Order: sequence, then structure tokens, then C-alpha cells
Amino acid sequence: MLYSQLFTKTKKEAPKDEVSLNAQLLIKAGFIHKEMAGVYAFLPLGKRVLDKIIDIIREEMNAIGGQEVLLGSLQNPAVWEATNRWADGSIDVWFKTNLQAGSEVGLAPTHEEPLTALMTQHIASYKDLPVYVYQFQLKFRNETRAKSGLLRTREFIMKDLYSFSKTQEDLDTFYEQAKQAYHTIFNRLGFGDYTFLTFASGGAFSKYSHEFQTLCPNGEDTIYLDRAKGIAVNKEVYTDEVLADLGVDKTSLEEVRAIEVGNIFRLGTKFSSPLGLSYTDVDGSVQPVIMGSYGIAPSRSMGTAVELFHDDKGIMWPEAIAPFKVHLVGLGMDNDVVRTKAFAVYDQLLSADIEVLFDDRDDVSNGEKLSDADLIGIPHRIIVSAKTEDKLEWKRRNSSESVFTTFDNLITNL
Amino acid sequence: MLYSQLFTKTKKEAPKDEVSLNAQLLIKAGFIHKEMAGVYAFLPLGKRVLDKIIDIIREEMNAIGGQEVLLGSLQNPAVWEATNRWADGSIDVWFKTNLQAGSEVGLAPTHEEPLTALMTQHIASYKDLPVYVYQFQLKFRNETRAKSGLLRTREFIMKDLYSFSKTQEDLDTFYEQAKQAYHTIFNRLGFGDYTFLTFASGGAFSKYSHEFQTLCPNGEDTIYLDRAKGIAVNKEVYTDEVLADLGVDKTSLEEVRAIEVGNIFRLGTKFSSPLGLSYTDVDGSVQPVIMGSYGIAPSRSMGTAVELFHDDKGIMWPEAIAPFKVHLVGLGMDNDVVRTKAFAVYDQLLSADIEVLFDDRDDVSNGEKLSDADLIGIPHRIIVSAKTEDKLEWKRRNSSESVFTTFDNLITNL
Repeated sequence: MLYSQLFTKTKKEAPKDEVSLNAQLLIKAGFIHKEMAGVYAFLPLGKRVLDKIIDIIREEMNAIGGQEVLLGSLQNPAVWEATNRWADGSIDVWFKTNLQAGSEVGLAPTHEEPLTALMTQHIASYKDLPVYVYQFQLKFRNETRAKSGLLRTREFIMKDLYSFSKTQEDLDTFYEQAKQAYHTIFNRLGFGDYTFLTFASGGAFSKYSHEFQTLCPNGEDTIYLDRAKGIAVNKEVYTDEVLADLGVDKTSLEEVRAIEVGNIFRLGTKFSSPLGLSYTDVDGSVQPVIMGSYGIAPSRSMGTAVELFHDDKGIMWPEAIAPFKVHLVGLGMDNDVVRTKAFAVYDQLLSADIEVLFDDRDDVSNGEKLSDADLIGIPHRIIVSAKTEDKLEWKRRNSSESVFTTFDNLITNL
Repeated sequence: MLYSQLFTKTKKEAPKDEVSLNAQLLIKAGFIHKEMAGVYAFLPLGKRVLDKIIDIIREEMNAIGGQEVLLGSLQNPAVWEATNRWADGSIDVWFKTNLQAGSEVGLAPTHEEPLTALMTQHIASYKDLPVYVYQFQLKFRNETRAKSGLLRTREFIMKDLYSFSKTQEDLDTFYEQAKQAYHTIFNRLGFGDYTFLTFASGGAFSKYSHEFQTLCPNGEDTIYLDRAKGIAVNKEVYTDEVLADLGVDKTSLEEVRAIEVGNIFRLGTKFSSPLGLSYTDVDGSVQPVIMGSYGIAPSRSMGTAVELFHDDKGIMWPEAIAPFKVHLVGLGMDNDVVRTKAFAVYDQLLSADIEVLFDDRDDVSNGEKLSDADLIGIPHRIIVSAKTEDKLEWKRRNSSESVFTTFDNLITNL
């Protein structure tokens, strides 16, 4: 893409009321726009990052047999009353509104109830199980505090997968597959090394749930990490009893701040029983379906990547989720030789199917172009200038050294 | 995809309270699920159709220079108060709700205001124009009447593009490009031949707006069509004065029912002036930006296709938006020869990159498989049975005749 055609501008300052580091950088670099506290718009660069994150998650959900759907946001109270979660006291982040005729409807903060109700139309027999259903759908959460940028917003797209199994054993088998898929996802997103399986509170149907917590000083959660074992315990279940149960020793734990980037729950029959989701088993008996839920918010992953990967000049995107792979900069574009060569390199990169943002602007200084490249944070910066002659100047965003290279060598290395 | 792994079941009956033809067929065939009046979930087959429609629209918006964003649903009253559209009387389909701290927020019924406000951050000079920005974003509309299935829902994804131009002439030039793009889209979706440019009421900044109306007995709109000229007039502006202005003769007009599948508006400075979206021109003067808006709802297009293309057995999808290209049916799968051959054909189709739904079920009758294929409406049905021997039986959904053909011949024809 030509930078001159990108409508967003970088900014020197983020809005004064924006206190989170990730949103400050993303706003300054033109990835997002703050519409109000807890509500952000994704601009072209931000939409590209969001889509790449979504694509990675979708691939991994399909790989474990997920089938994609898209449910509604407006919620019929009836299905939530069946599970006693309609009252504002039971879910404290409800947004509610009214139809013209007067009846109250909600905005989905999560989707266990409507999906469980839906599945009663399609699950009847043991032959219909297991089934894994997921979506990328808006969640609305009426958060009292929304000051962490993309880490906690009042509306956001969530990937939520729900598993429907015959037995606890079948659920356990899938639960392990989902756990592995989550590790794969965070590795692919670029922050697997910072992300730890964390034991959190379970519920009526399982001793623990599991969170994926990414170490980060600005995280909202406190966890106790056993680095050697690669597992952690959320503060909410940090008791001597739990530590003994998990076989971890208090002295080997570090107290650290972290961002909850994913969570998986065994739901058991919590939703299937009250909503009548059951199946007829091979012996003719009628059994409730055993459920699990598995969530990741792509925008929170985007915010997490920025919290982890930046310096004082800007963002440093992991390659898999960067808006473009290459940031091509023409320096001194008023020189015809430079200009012609820069456009030729742009065309060659496009021909080689490499995603490239080409700073073709001729009304800004060289210094501005270079600082914009640092702020935006695309992994590979390629400079064409009078100095580069028949070579290209290639620098990785996370390195301070640049090298002069031929186009062919560059392509081989990319 | 293997039919045995698809979690949806076809149904003999749609819910009793579902009166619309498109929703009845889509529910029976397992494409959508009714969550409440005006709110539908998209099941795997429906999600595939929706995604194909979205992809076609996205390609055509990119082709005319559109840049994709994603705005919020929750609306800050301030930007709507600036244009006098916050009051319930000015937009009669608002859904409103409250933040925990008490202040009122809305759910976007459309996005002129927030996008115009956003663009003030990125447009300052004549050099920044023109810009074309679009999104696929939820709209919430508190409709009193939601009985037309996917044709009128209380929440739906809309593709809305907004153009930002320096002058009326620039707007007019882009407006014509968008008009052509819309014709291309409806042609690609498969109902271009039924879709007519229709003159509708304009506003302060233009005499007319334009709708794209698809002829359909179940449409909510009445239009007056001049078939020879290929244009129509909406009932709302059907006056002698308008007819004279457009040079159409009353006697050549048919009164027909139609579905509004798209609309384009010249907005002029209606939103840019009150929201302060202006640019500094080359002569140093400050001018308001001239805007246009361009909408298509992918789910309404999906409902329209079903209204147009069906028979008493089910849906007949246009090829470009069908959930799969081929519906492969194994009849008599208890015969090992048939079973082996059917799976081999399935693998061959996948290898040839052809999207195929393979009915591999062995617990339903042959008749049920064939009636499900008719109901679901995939364009090409391929049968493998004891009768087909080394050939395949190929029938188009919209034809009553089947032919026996070789695999190679089939691939050539597909």
C-alpha cells in the first residue's frame, strides 16, 4: 500500500484522557481511534492487525474441529432467566435496553445461554456428539473501569468456542486439545514465551479453570509463577491447599503481574441442564450434554503485543501480526533516480507477494518518515536513497543495525 | 466438508411464528436459527454464504479505493447531538442503554456521526482528499415490525462506505463509480438482472438519492419501473414533477414490489458542517468536506437471493454465494464399492480445490439425502451409487435433468 493513500496520520500526542500505554502508542501510530472510554475504532492499520490475529485463531480452531457460527448480540431474557443469569446481580456487566413495544432485551456479555438453547435444535442423539462450535462475536460489558486501552473495553470481539460432549472423559480429551491449540495460538501471535497456563477458580463442575496469562507489568492480574514448571496460580486461588494440590512450592513462586489473554472452563452441565440440552445415549437413556468453553479476545491480544513489544520510539510488531511485513521508505524522493528505483522496488515486492507499506510521500522530511516507521513498528524497514545505489538498506525494527543488501538477497531472507 | 460432521440438521417445519419465506427456508435447511423476532444466528452453512457475500462486496469496495475500518457499536451522545439526531424523534429506531455510572449511550443505527468525528483527526488539507472509508459493522435498529426474516432485522451487519471529497464535482465522479460498483456487486451476487437503480428522496444536498431495488413479490417497497430504460422511481417520490424531471412516461411504468438491497446518498455537508470536518484548500481557505454514503446489508442480500431463487423443494443458490459448489451424495453407502468410490471422488474434488459438501451419512435413507440436497440448494449435485458405475450422475439444482459424466469432464465443466 502507498503511504500517501493511507488516510491515517501519526500523532505526536495521544488524547490526554488516555492513560494506557498500548492505546497511547496505537492511537499515535494511527492504528486505533478512541470513541469514548472503553470503545475504540480500528483504523486501516489496526484492522489489518486484528484480522491477522483473527485468522490465526480461526485456523487453530478449525484444526481442532471447530465449526464457525455467528450469533446475535441482542439477548432474549428467557434463556438467561433459565440459568438465573438475567438479574443484574448475577452478571454485573449487563447492558440492557428495550424494544419499542417495551420488553427488555440484553446485549450479550457472553454466549453460553443462547448457544446452548440453539443446540437443543441440533443435538438429540449420541451420534450428534461431540460438536465444537465457535464464533468471533461482539461482547458488550458494562465495565465500571475502562482505562487499560485494548486490554479492557466495553465492547470487543471475542472468539468463544463451546464444546459439547457425551461424557466427562470426552470433555477432558478435548479440553487438552484446546489447551494445546491455545499454546499454539499464543506462540504464533508472538508472545508464547511470555504466556503461562495458570490455575484459576473452577466452579461446581471442576476444581480449576485455566487461564493463559501473559507476563506484563501493566497487566491487571496478579499471578504466582513457577518458571521451572511453566505453570502459575492466580491470586484468587493462591492458598496452601491449592499449592499442595498442584505440587508447587511457595518458595519457588514469583509474584508477577500478567494479562489474561485466554481462558478455558469445564462447564459440565451448568448450562445444558437448565436449558434442556440432552441426548439419547446408545442404551436409550437421556443424558445432559457435557460442555466446555474456550475464550480469546483478539483485540486484547493486540493490546498485549503492544505492551510487550515497543521501545521509546514506537511499536515493534511480531511478524505474524504486523500490518505489513515491509516498510519501504524512499528518502529524498525529489531525486528522480531515487524515486524511480523506490517505485521499482515497491513493484518488485508486490510481485513477490510481500505485504509492503511504501512511504512515497514527498511532502514530509526524511526524519519524519523514519520516525513514523519506528512508531508504526513494521518488522522490516527497507530504505532506498541516493546512498543505497544499487543496494537496499535493510533494518529490522527490533535491531539497531542496518545492512546493505541486494533485492534478491532480501527476498531470500524475508 | 463431511455432512456427518456438520452439526446442523434440516427440519420439516420452521417455527410457527416465522412468517417470512426466506427465513422459513433458511431455518429448515439449517442456515440460520431464530433467536427472537428480528434476531437470527448464522449457522455454519449460513455463515459461509454470509462470508461469500461479504468477500464480494469487500473486493468491489477495495477496487474503488475503499479503506476498511471497524467502528464501535456503543455511541457517544455528543456526536449525535451535534447533528440533532440523538433525540428519539429524529431517529425512530434507536436502542439506548446506560453506563453503570448512569450516562446514556446508544447502539449505532448507522455511522455517519462517529466516522465524521473520527475523520476530523485525519483530514486537514486538500492533500488529504479524497478518502473512501468503509466497514462491515453491526447496526442496531429498534424496528417495531420484524417479520420479513433476513430482509428486516433488529441487528445486522452493514457494509457502509463514506466518501470524503473536496468538491461536489469530485463527489459526483465517485458517486458514479460507486453506482457502477453496486451494479457489479449485484451481478456477482446473482441477482443483477432483477435489480434496478431507483430514484428516491434526496435531502438538503441533492434532489435524489438512489436505491438498488430487487424485484420480488415479498419486497416491502413499491416502485414504478421503466423496464426499457432500466430505471425505477420509488413510491415516495412518484409525482408528475419527478417523472417529468427524469423523462419517464407514466404509461411505460409498472407498479412492482421490490426489496431495497442497497442505497447511495449524496450527503453534502450535512454531517461535516456540524461536526467540524473541514480542510484547508490550496488557496488557504477553509472548506467543509463534501460527503456521500453507500450502504449494502449482506444478510439482506442473502435473504433476497432465497426469495428469488427457490422452488417447492428448497433453495437454489447462485453459484457465487452458495455455501459449497458441489453437493456430493453417496447413495447406498452400505455397498463397499459405492462407499470407496464416493470417498475417492470426495478426495479428488478437494484436490481439485472444489468446495464440496459430501453426504457421507449412513443412517439416513437415500430419499432423505436427496431431499436434503434439494432443500440446501447447492448448485451442483453429484451422485455416486451402484448405478453410476465408473461415471458420476451430475444434476444442477435449477435443472430437472441429470447426466452421467466422467470425473474429468465434470471438473472441466465446473
